[in-house]
Amino acid sequence: MALVNEHLMKLPDNYLFTDIAKKVNSFRVTHPKADIIHLGIGDVTRPIPEACAQAMKAAVDDLTRPETFHGYGPEQGYDFLIEAILRNDYAQRGISLSPSEIFISDGAKSDTGNIGDILRHDNSIGVTDPIYPAYIDSNVSCGRAGILGTNHQWSNVVYMPCIPENNFIPELPTQRVDIIYLCYPNNPTGSVLSKNELKKWVHYALANDTLILFDAAYEAYIRQPDIPHSIYEIKGAKKVAIEIRSFSKTAGFTGVRCGYTVIPKEVTAATLTGERISLNKLWSKRQNTKFNGASYIAQRGAAAIYTPEGKEQVKAMTDYYMDNARLMKRYLDGTGLKVSGGENAPYLWVKAPKGFTSWQFFEHLLYEAHVVSTPGVGFGPNGEGYIRLTAFGERKQCEEGMRRICQYL
Amino acid sequence: MALVNEHLMKLPDNYLFTDIAKKVNSFRVTHPKADIIHLGIGDVTRPIPEACAQAMKAAVDDLTRPETFHGYGPEQGYDFLIEAILRNDYAQRGISLSPSEIFISDGAKSDTGNIGDILRHDNSIGVTDPIYPAYIDSNVSCGRAGILGTNHQWSNVVYMPCIPENNFIPELPTQRVDIIYLCYPNNPTGSVLSKNELKKWVHYALANDTLILFDAAYEAYIRQPDIPHSIYEIKGAKKVAIEIRSFSKTAGFTGVRCGYTVIPKEVTAATLTGERISLNKLWSKRQNTKFNGASYIAQRGAAAIYTPEGKEQVKAMTDYYMDNARLMKRYLDGTGLKVSGGENAPYLWVKAPKGFTSWQFFEHLLYEAHVVSTPGVGFGPNGEGYIRLTAFGERKQCEEGMRRICQYL
Repeated sequence: MALVNEHLMKLPDNYLFTDIAKKVNSFRVTHPKADIIHLGIGDVTRPIPEACAQAMKAAVDDLTRPETFHGYGPEQGYDFLIEAILRNDYAQRGISLSPSEIFISDGAKSDTGNIGDILRHDNSIGVTDPIYPAYIDSNVSCGRAGILGTNHQWSNVVYMPCIPENNFIPELPTQRVDIIYLCYPNNPTGSVLSKNELKKWVHYALANDTLILFDAAYEAYIRQPDIPHSIYEIKGAKKVAIEIRSFSKTAGFTGVRCGYTVIPKEVTAATLTGERISLNKLWSKRQNTKFNGASYIAQRGAAAIYTPEGKEQVKAMTDYYMDNARLMKRYLDGTGLKVSGGENAPYLWVKAPKGFTSWQFFEHLLYEAHVVSTPGVGFGPNGEGYIRLTAFGERKQCEEGMRRICQYL
Repeated sequence: MALVNEHLMKLPDNYLFTDIAKKVNSFRVTHPKADIIHLGIGDVTRPIPEACAQAMKAAVDDLTRPETFHGYGPEQGYDFLIEAILRNDYAQRGISLSPSEIFISDGAKSDTGNIGDILRHDNSIGVTDPIYPAYIDSNVSCGRAGILGTNHQWSNVVYMPCIPENNFIPELPTQRVDIIYLCYPNNPTGSVLSKNELKKWVHYALANDTLILFDAAYEAYIRQPDIPHSIYEIKGAKKVAIEIRSFSKTAGFTGVRCGYTVIPKEVTAATLTGERISLNKLWSKRQNTKFNGASYIAQRGAAAIYTPEGKEQVKAMTDYYMDNARLMKRYLDGTGLKVSGGENAPYLWVKAPKGFTSWQFFEHLLYEAHVVSTPGVGFGPNGEGYIRLTAFGERKQCEEGMRRICQYL
């Protein structure tokens, strides 16, 4: 008889965004005429850059002619995209990487989930709290997270609180941790790490032989000069960090599906006998076994992001969202609510009025202002008492939503 | 210190198609002017159907307008594609499935690899020999395959020989096996299972509480009426089988990346205490955690396969390849070589002349006829003494290749 992976059964049946959808639906039943404004899910709304669209249509045309047809591509991705990435995302920031250190994929969620395949099931993991839930869930599903305690914490997970007392910047763990997830600019708090802050983490990792999984999906939203876009801007990071990037938020690719992961040749982890193994080589084996490359069309679209027109259009798009964030922040600041984020990230992290839990504030905003937010507690215990608002909406909607919230408050 | 998954290190460094590429490259160095004909890798060469191209270009256009923009899609896939699949691939064959039993993905290789995530690491597995290597490799990489013996067999894998004595149709295992991989029409032998043959496997699975992973990637090449296109044509299969499908070979989507997996609600596996768990629900959890849906563009392209024009164009394409197969078979039959497959599958399984190993025959074909084949031993020990030829080439190339082989022989 075939046996199931029982670890997967430990994952809760209720998924944050499904719960939100259910609550929105019940509201809709009783308020069929309400004009709901969605600032909850972190999904983009602006059209993809015209340069990407043109490139993808040309790529489709390539597939219609025998002489330009593309079948299976290289599992690691096409050179035309890898080279554009190396040149623009790294060389221009003084980071030297080789083509074989870049792995193109169908998106950051696949990579952050699947990267666990190359690591032992009993490594301890460290996460900031609050955090994007998929990091923990993917570890729960293979048993790496351990057992869920009555305190809602997993036994093999070290939680690093991001709270107002530390300006939502986590402190280094006091114990050794094998693998640490960092996401900067941060989802959900919208906070960022300065170069000096990030240095501390790289030094911790070097000193403790820790692997850092650095999620830089929101780097295109960084506006201040001192904020590193890549962890490899820190000396020594190539020895300890894997960086995961996505075109989803950079260029509106949430529906196109393309991202990439950087695994420098120097990053190693150990066998039980202490032998150091290149994670680049292991990930390459994993991908060769279980992945057949990202779509040729999506890769052509992604490469167009790096053309002069593409860069301009991406800048205009991320500027649009950041203008939303600024506008939203201005409104909310006026209400006396405590708001952080929104300066180098498309997320606002809003403290609920005194006495409100995340879900209570969520419901009030839904019923009184017809605005959908995301309850902060859905991102972890330290998210309790907060909501997350995204700046990915249409300008008028964002403004109208804020007006209603101000009115209600 | 982070520890690696040491099971991944058991995978051989040399990958079949990389080895082939190396041998071809050395040939090229010594024969720079040779016109090499590639009938090795199972990749398509014909343009994608015009209907799919039109649909994908329209999908790209959708992404350029705010009112038709598509961001994150449903993790399980869009209804427009799921419904087309249900209607055309299943209802028309008398198989009733519900939308939530279909999971759209970026391709069959991802699904056949990742499906192991929902199953315990110590289930025994059964494979035909020869076999598509990724089935075994994905099990090796999580420890499920056990230890590699001196006989080149993994300790937790039951091998079911496909040899001339059984007409390349495997016999039921004499022992219980937890999970069995079946791929029909078969890669690499090109053999098929009749309805009666497939029935035996479903009955075995029902009697032994075995899970069947049925890879039907080549079903579009079936030409005879008695050959089942889906395992669910067999009564009872919904209790024991997961079916994996791909648009890669159906519509030239190897570069587009789209496929799907069917997990009926009735398929269950057990916990250690004997509780039966729905694999549909577990896979849904796995995908929600580690996957963000297939590309909107690819899904629109795939849906176009099911339009009247799409169907006609797919038929023309698969007919083209099957005409290649027929032509190739006719040539090879004339040489006295023993050839099977090629009637309901785009692969020819060719016995090497007496005394030749797979690699020796491969090298002879390369150096004497300038034709690239795939050594059968790359698919497993029982592939020794065979080569695989694919019918996915351009017509003139296939014919010229056969002419050269005949001349050389």
